[in-house]
Amino acid sequence: MQEYPLSKVFQLLEPGPTVLVTTASGGRANVMTMSWHMMMEFTPPLLACVVSEANHSFAALASTRQCVIAIPPASFAPTVVDIGNCTGAKVDKFQAFGLAKLPAAQVAAPLIAQCFANLECIVADDALVERYNLFVLQVVQAWFDPAWPELASTDPGRNLPKTLHHNGDGTFRLDGEMLNLKKRMVKFPECT
Amino acid sequence: MQEYPLSKVFQLLEPGPTVLVTTASGGRANVMTMSWHMMMEFTPPLLACVVSEANHSFAALASTRQCVIAIPPASFAPTVVDIGNCTGAKVDKFQAFGLAKLPAAQVAAPLIAQCFANLECIVADDALVERYNLFVLQVVQAWFDPAWPELASTDPGRNLPKTLHHNGDGTFRLDGEMLNLKKRMVKFPECT
Repeated sequence: MQEYPLSKVFQLLEPGPTVLVTTASGGRANVMTMSWHMMMEFTPPLLACVVSEANHSFAALASTRQCVIAIPPASFAPTVVDIGNCTGAKVDKFQAFGLAKLPAAQVAAPLIAQCFANLECIVADDALVERYNLFVLQVVQAWFDPAWPELASTDPGRNLPKTLHHNGDGTFRLDGEMLNLKKRMVKFPECT
Repeated sequence: MQEYPLSKVFQLLEPGPTVLVTTASGGRANVMTMSWHMMMEFTPPLLACVVSEANHSFAALASTRQCVIAIPPASFAPTVVDIGNCTGAKVDKFQAFGLAKLPAAQVAAPLIAQCFANLECIVADDALVERYNLFVLQVVQAWFDPAWPELASTDPGRNLPKTLHHNGDGTFRLDGEMLNLKKRMVKFPECT
């Protein structure tokens, strides 16, 4: 994995991909699937996510206050669904699904080698955890797979890995056509 | 517009579409473009969104505590970008962009006829508005365009309107292929 600029993290999450969340607690790593997340701030990158108390990952995230958000390519879809349909309380999901762990730089939770981007996060605010299971995370280090050099490019016609968008019911929309409307972004030239 | 079940609202927003947000304040309607939102709860449907204080819509949303989230089809992309690149402080965007208003049932903000789904929302929690401009919204009434009957269907092969996913830089990924992995959703049969 290669370093990805923190100032561009929002470009990875703003499109709404289904992601994986890894945690490590008591020397044991776990991973869950997540679609309820959003960007909150550009720099330092903040995001919000909802992790249900029903998820085994909840306790690890709440106690260690660390996680990694890994973005899988669309080709990983069957595994992404299966990860979300079993529990770390009973299964070592890394072993069960052949997920290759890579060490993170700033958190104990592992990166996932099969994912094209990995975001090391710390819990920045837990004010709404009790009420809604809503965590505010700060991305402290970001990585991308150099097999996808165009992720770090600003070329508007760049070839990005196709991601998954979960319709919430076991069906997904995959990324299709790319549309370039940069010329119309007159108010935010710093983004284009 | 036809009534859309509140229990299925999460299926509209979970994939992460770029949306429009309408407000009405002092008898004047306004609209902005938004990509920073996520689902928080199934029923009643709660969502979170970030509306910057720099947006003219912020004051209207904060004071009236109401808005409509309208989901545009991908074909509306140029207008979606243009709406986000001018301010309601200077422009009547409904007039400027030929947006057709429809009356909402429970809020003063208008629905947008060109959008295939419209969600009437009230501010349910403003605890994180001051710190992050993060609003917790409750969807109190939902509508869909009957030209898209499959939106309300549970057919896994259903034909859904293509939506926009903003890469944050003026480029968008459009919905492409639909992937049906319902059979693997063993833990959440109620969703499939």
